[in-house]
Amino acid sequence: MPIVPRMFEARFQTFDDPPPPAASAPRVAALRTELLRLGLTGLVIPRADRHQNEYVPPSEERLAWLTGFTGSAGAAIVLADRAAIFVDGRYQVQVRSQVDTEIFSIEHLVDAPPATWIEANLPAGTQLGYDPWLHTVDGAERLRKACAAAGATLVAVEPNPIDAIWTDRPPSPLGPVVTHDLRYAGEDVPSKLARIGAEIAKLRADALIVSDPHAVAWAFNIRGADVAHTPLPLAFAVIPREGRPSLYVDGRKLTNTVRHTLEAQIDVKEPAAFADDVTTLATKHQTLRLDQATAADALAQFVTEAGGTISRGPDPIATMKAVKNAAEIEGARAAQRRDGAAVVRFLAWFTHEAPSGKLTEIDAVAALETCRRETGVLKDISFPTISGAGPHGAIVHYRVTNGSNRRIAPGELFLIDSGAQYEDGTTDITRTLIVGMPTAEMRDRFTRVLKGHIAIARSVFPEGTTGAQLDSLARFALWSAGLDFDHGTGHGVGSYLSVHEGPARISKLGTTALKRGMILSNEPGYYKADAYGIRIENLVLVREAAPVAGAEKALNTFETLTLAPIERRLIDRRLLTPEEIGWLDAYHARVAETLSDDLDSATAAWLDAATRPLTAE
Amino acid sequence: MPIVPRMFEARFQTFDDPPPPAASAPRVAALRTELLRLGLTGLVIPRADRHQNEYVPPSEERLAWLTGFTGSAGAAIVLADRAAIFVDGRYQVQVRSQVDTEIFSIEHLVDAPPATWIEANLPAGTQLGYDPWLHTVDGAERLRKACAAAGATLVAVEPNPIDAIWTDRPPSPLGPVVTHDLRYAGEDVPSKLARIGAEIAKLRADALIVSDPHAVAWAFNIRGADVAHTPLPLAFAVIPREGRPSLYVDGRKLTNTVRHTLEAQIDVKEPAAFADDVTTLATKHQTLRLDQATAADALAQFVTEAGGTISRGPDPIATMKAVKNAAEIEGARAAQRRDGAAVVRFLAWFTHEAPSGKLTEIDAVAALETCRRETGVLKDISFPTISGAGPHGAIVHYRVTNGSNRRIAPGELFLIDSGAQYEDGTTDITRTLIVGMPTAEMRDRFTRVLKGHIAIARSVFPEGTTGAQLDSLARFALWSAGLDFDHGTGHGVGSYLSVHEGPARISKLGTTALKRGMILSNEPGYYKADAYGIRIENLVLVREAAPVAGAEKALNTFETLTLAPIERRLIDRRLLTPEEIGWLDAYHARVAETLSDDLDSATAAWLDAATRPLTAE
Repeated sequence: MPIVPRMFEARFQTFDDPPPPAASAPRVAALRTELLRLGLTGLVIPRADRHQNEYVPPSEERLAWLTGFTGSAGAAIVLADRAAIFVDGRYQVQVRSQVDTEIFSIEHLVDAPPATWIEANLPAGTQLGYDPWLHTVDGAERLRKACAAAGATLVAVEPNPIDAIWTDRPPSPLGPVVTHDLRYAGEDVPSKLARIGAEIAKLRADALIVSDPHAVAWAFNIRGADVAHTPLPLAFAVIPREGRPSLYVDGRKLTNTVRHTLEAQIDVKEPAAFADDVTTLATKHQTLRLDQATAADALAQFVTEAGGTISRGPDPIATMKAVKNAAEIEGARAAQRRDGAAVVRFLAWFTHEAPSGKLTEIDAVAALETCRRETGVLKDISFPTISGAGPHGAIVHYRVTNGSNRRIAPGELFLIDSGAQYEDGTTDITRTLIVGMPTAEMRDRFTRVLKGHIAIARSVFPEGTTGAQLDSLARFALWSAGLDFDHGTGHGVGSYLSVHEGPARISKLGTTALKRGMILSNEPGYYKADAYGIRIENLVLVREAAPVAGAEKALNTFETLTLAPIERRLIDRRLLTPEEIGWLDAYHARVAETLSDDLDSATAAWLDAATRPLTAE
Repeated sequence: MPIVPRMFEARFQTFDDPPPPAASAPRVAALRTELLRLGLTGLVIPRADRHQNEYVPPSEERLAWLTGFTGSAGAAIVLADRAAIFVDGRYQVQVRSQVDTEIFSIEHLVDAPPATWIEANLPAGTQLGYDPWLHTVDGAERLRKACAAAGATLVAVEPNPIDAIWTDRPPSPLGPVVTHDLRYAGEDVPSKLARIGAEIAKLRADALIVSDPHAVAWAFNIRGADVAHTPLPLAFAVIPREGRPSLYVDGRKLTNTVRHTLEAQIDVKEPAAFADDVTTLATKHQTLRLDQATAADALAQFVTEAGGTISRGPDPIATMKAVKNAAEIEGARAAQRRDGAAVVRFLAWFTHEAPSGKLTEIDAVAALETCRRETGVLKDISFPTISGAGPHGAIVHYRVTNGSNRRIAPGELFLIDSGAQYEDGTTDITRTLIVGMPTAEMRDRFTRVLKGHIAIARSVFPEGTTGAQLDSLARFALWSAGLDFDHGTGHGVGSYLSVHEGPARISKLGTTALKRGMILSNEPGYYKADAYGIRIENLVLVREAAPVAGAEKALNTFETLTLAPIERRLIDRRLLTPEEIGWLDAYHARVAETLSDDLDSATAAWLDAATRPLTAE
């Protein structure tokens, strides 16, 4: 039965080219006039909102408005006679096409960070402004030290001086807040609050200041629509050890029903009340828990100035949220089954269409989003799909635009990294495909990446093991050929929340223990600059391992949640051990068995071929 | 040819039982009187000398003198009405047999450290004394914070109040200082000083304060005899970025020849001049590099009070010293060949004698030391041999005494961990032996430990890889059976210096990159409490790996330096892969080939059998 061509459309992803160099000159001039008026020598402008979100609303894109730079991380410093913009390795090319280098010198965010630049460039005796809501406690501390080293002073300035000159600044988002159904959340708010209260007591604090909206969403079983691709409500909260917590959220985001539901357990207040309430608690000499790596410096100042004590350290909600309960795990499995079927429909279509050589990267994005949307329950994609053909695959954070869009040519590898937001779960999957015939080198590299992926998937490790202890498993097969990849092996994933969720990760920096119930990605890769990129990504769940006779330690392992075939034509099976082949064949058998009922017969037949055991050859 | 019985004797190791509970009561009473006189509420007594040495001279054993506790790590705090001693997990049993628990409560050094105890027990408004020479900058900072939290004050007190009441305190050691021959050191002092100066310049410091005698010994190509088992001269140094460094050492340790040699490049001064010189530099507003994790707090105070600036961070000599040069590497290979032959003579003797069931742990120590001494060039053992039969093998830091000495019974595993100091290199080797027949469980566990050992030995990894990234390789085979071991996989080893040398290690805490030329131990183990212990330890050298076509990264691997057979009767070869068997057979072939010329014919015949390939069966 022929696969019928369909109309594909991307609704959650745009392909606009980055804007050309902005008219920065008049904006920077206006800012300098404003700073002069305020008695400041300069201002730090981070790419950040008050919550340190990964995606920020348009109203918070001050860095992009001022400099033209639209990357997802960076900062600028404007002084009276000079200015600099700081971006990381990913954005060194993009920044030069977007930013007026007559005005801004380009600096490396990691190798030559703002603190270093301040020490070298800020004149002694001057005052450098910063918006204390946009910098973390730790971040402000680093700036303060740098200013001191330069003999200058860091000065908090509110409201943000940019806002006075940004005349067409978009309004703050007002995405509706909805309750997250108990069927998906798996634990009601009173139960969560009791557990959070116990954690606050353990920390010997009186209350927890929650500035991460992911934590707010999890604690109160709500979701929102204020930023792209993540169902976040921009909101703060204060949760006391005992008694009613307060949620600070713009009332216009709440229907009467939602407000009523929330008010059964929570005091719902306007954001304007937040700072006053924190100050009031501090005035009572309370000890307030604050995550210094994510909380705004402004909050720490309110507490300290009002006589309160800060308990610095991680927000305990982060770990509670990372450990999924039974309902969230069941939701994740259901979401993966649904998403897997959508991905398989996309893969079958791609296999059929790609040999023509006419498909583009954007066609693939549109087709995949359409397959997901056809499930009828897609809420959003979980991040902009990375769709990289040939050399574009080697750009780890490539984002296709109309200008960069490339045909996927025969003989090329095609890397597609995508995910979905469903109410029952968040997905994230990468597959690397081949159009036509791969080279021997491509198969060698792909198989080494696969060996790393399988090593993580099959690993068995004692309770308490960290991601750092497993990360190298994903690399040994590459290392032995003198190869590696320059990113972590895996990140935590939320439950209908952020696709990048802390605190656990599989990385040499991942010092958090992997606990049963955590969901992480398993995504080793290999990138050959200007040639191709390879990544194989499934989500995995930390769970109890099968019992072993004589075991002295509680053992954990991963259950692979993601269900979609891995390109067999890219595998050089001579490089695989019997155990690795066994894993792949068992995985493919499970993919076929789980998904085939949800597929039309042509797609099911395609899947059958795509998941044929290697041992059958 | 029969192996002739010989007379064995241990000269570098003693087997005295730990002294019984000391007459602490009068000593503690005297200390309290002294503290009262000084206006102090209490005193912290760490097990430490001014250099934070692993082995301290008898004159610095204040903790043992006061409390009776003779372990290698710990601290006590004596207040007016209570006292506590803090020891780690290794010493929880020993401390109770040595310390008067009527006077001292026993606390866990790690789980309930001094800082915690101070917060809970030190009365507000009081003054706690500490000897600023015996605590690091970091350590004193922790104590200071704890005192502040208790509303009390930490007060530096000099001289140490213990010394006023310890009437028969031994004199400080006066071990002769000798020059370390250039043939072994491989780099002369001017060259080392030039490199150190360049490092000081990179750190933007004016001078380096060297408080670690290992670093002093390395920088000036000298060795000493002030502590057990490590050829250290207790000494300090100040090395300026340019110009002549100063060495602070008791002149009685120097012959005229040595003094003359040193004074060609160095100003040699008495230790009393050290503090004044540091103060003088600080008065000139110099920036002085100080390793806050090892340098005495007293030094930081001299600098700060005199107006100098401290550059806090690792002593750059630590890494320079860890990377062995060509002469040191050749020396290590020669030392290992010599030591391997001695170990093989011991193993052949043991195999012949042990079945009688009459050998004891002390017999084995004496025999092994004698075999090493018969090389004619043994300077010392590199640490007290750990000789553990049966259940004693499960005590990771077991030290045999006349009281604990145990016969090595048939059917028992015997773990022997030992090392030697030769002028050309320091060795450290562990072998696990069996008398009679092993159980299936013993063979399973031994083979899993061996798999971990081989995985480390065979590993290939890119330049820049840390020990933390390799540590798990030593554990996977144990993890899959629900087992693990509770220590790091490897430590750095000095060149005729300390058998435990930083900064690199193979451990989940080992965040230092492994550089070519570093020597580390590879020593996974498995311990079954009250039953047996297994450890297989070789020293390995980080070196360039064989080139791989298409490699994009510089690759390193390990060369195994230690040469001695691994007990074949304990291997279950069904658990080994062909690659693992290949590694073991090749290793054994190299052991036999390298050592047989140095052995009498009976021992050579034994070695031949002991290194028979597994593939030959």
